[in-house]
Amino acid sequence: MNVFYIPNAIEGLTTLPEDESKHCVKVLRMTEGERFCVTDGVGSLYDAELVEALPKRATVQLSNKRKGYDHWGFQLVIAIAPTKLNDRTEWFLEKATEIGIDRVQLFTSYHSERRAANVERFQKVMVAAMKQSIKSRLPHIDDLEPFEKLVKQPFDGQKFIAWIDDNVKECLCDLYQKGQNVLVLIGPEGDFSPEEVALAKENGFVPVSLGDARLRTETAAIVACHTIQLINQMK
Amino acid sequence: MNVFYIPNAIEGLTTLPEDESKHCVKVLRMTEGERFCVTDGVGSLYDAELVEALPKRATVQLSNKRKGYDHWGFQLVIAIAPTKLNDRTEWFLEKATEIGIDRVQLFTSYHSERRAANVERFQKVMVAAMKQSIKSRLPHIDDLEPFEKLVKQPFDGQKFIAWIDDNVKECLCDLYQKGQNVLVLIGPEGDFSPEEVALAKENGFVPVSLGDARLRTETAAIVACHTIQLINQMK
Repeated sequence: MNVFYIPNAIEGLTTLPEDESKHCVKVLRMTEGERFCVTDGVGSLYDAELVEALPKRATVQLSNKRKGYDHWGFQLVIAIAPTKLNDRTEWFLEKATEIGIDRVQLFTSYHSERRAANVERFQKVMVAAMKQSIKSRLPHIDDLEPFEKLVKQPFDGQKFIAWIDDNVKECLCDLYQKGQNVLVLIGPEGDFSPEEVALAKENGFVPVSLGDARLRTETAAIVACHTIQLINQMK
Repeated sequence: MNVFYIPNAIEGLTTLPEDESKHCVKVLRMTEGERFCVTDGVGSLYDAELVEALPKRATVQLSNKRKGYDHWGFQLVIAIAPTKLNDRTEWFLEKATEIGIDRVQLFTSYHSERRAANVERFQKVMVAAMKQSIKSRLPHIDDLEPFEKLVKQPFDGQKFIAWIDDNVKECLCDLYQKGQNVLVLIGPEGDFSPEEVALAKENGFVPVSLGDARLRTETAAIVACHTIQLINQMK
């Protein structure tokens, strides 16, 4: 099924944003009367019918507003340093959006490989993944901020820091409590510095392992995301 | 740490394969006396010292043979149809190798988007991921075979089939029993045909969901792989 994104859509007659109009009318060559799905990115899906196939400003009729299936009742936040290769971060954003995440926070740290991020491009990746997986909610993504600032922010839920350390024996899957809000910090490619780990601990972050396997940054982030979703799914 | 792969290595004086020699001597410019790690791909790691830096046939001294950490005591097999875009399959192979998998079986089915596979290239992706994640075991990958043949093969363990169906209510995470060998069939991009699902059921495959999220083929495969590893890790 084709899914289009209209931020803050409302029922009735409305227009597709310019890029979505183009995709609908020029790329997919949809014509008046064709039906598809619309997501508003904030929790609802709609049935949609193309009323006027204008390539820059297509008119659609929205009906049958309904809550999406992607309301899981807890906040899942992953904080990650952008990887040296952008496609690895983008891959994480795509997969996390598919699997289910509420917010991604980007940070720079002592050993960060990359100190700039194209958040607009990252958002586009997440919009595409939201549409592809027929989700009603677009995850938030925050622009880069320094690690020192990030760890001091208030967060109402469990806070974990995952990095490579043979002395960390407890696994995220054993410490996370089903239904709780959760924020997981993922070590950058150069890993956290000892000072950063200490600062995180001072600010209430609990060190956890993600299992025995040695994972790349973006794999660790997906493993953390899926661990939380899976624990909440299990009977 | 640098890791090199010597298939079926033995302790003592030996040589790196040609491509590994080139990487060691030409790319990384390692010199005599430098130390690194060697994996034999069948369960052991070694300490290694470069003895003679020949670019096509480097000599190394292997010592301290030890069992890798990646022995999990059950067989984890995922069967998947290669995706239309090769990089999505390669991405799955990289991530599954990092997270931990024993065997990948490739199949063609009624709605398969791709009917040829470059298994040699896929193997290279898995070798790179094995080295990067310091694993001692290289997962097997089997060449394409027809779905009808695949589902009739004997398998000593739990057998599941995952595809998109609103009537499948039971989740892999609830039906899989910790410690068991497991084979999971993942639906291709065009999904399984009803006849294929029926054939799999006849041959003892149990239909399962991977959760509420609608996942791409390669994401579903990673989610299945991580679900099994996580359940075996949990206390």
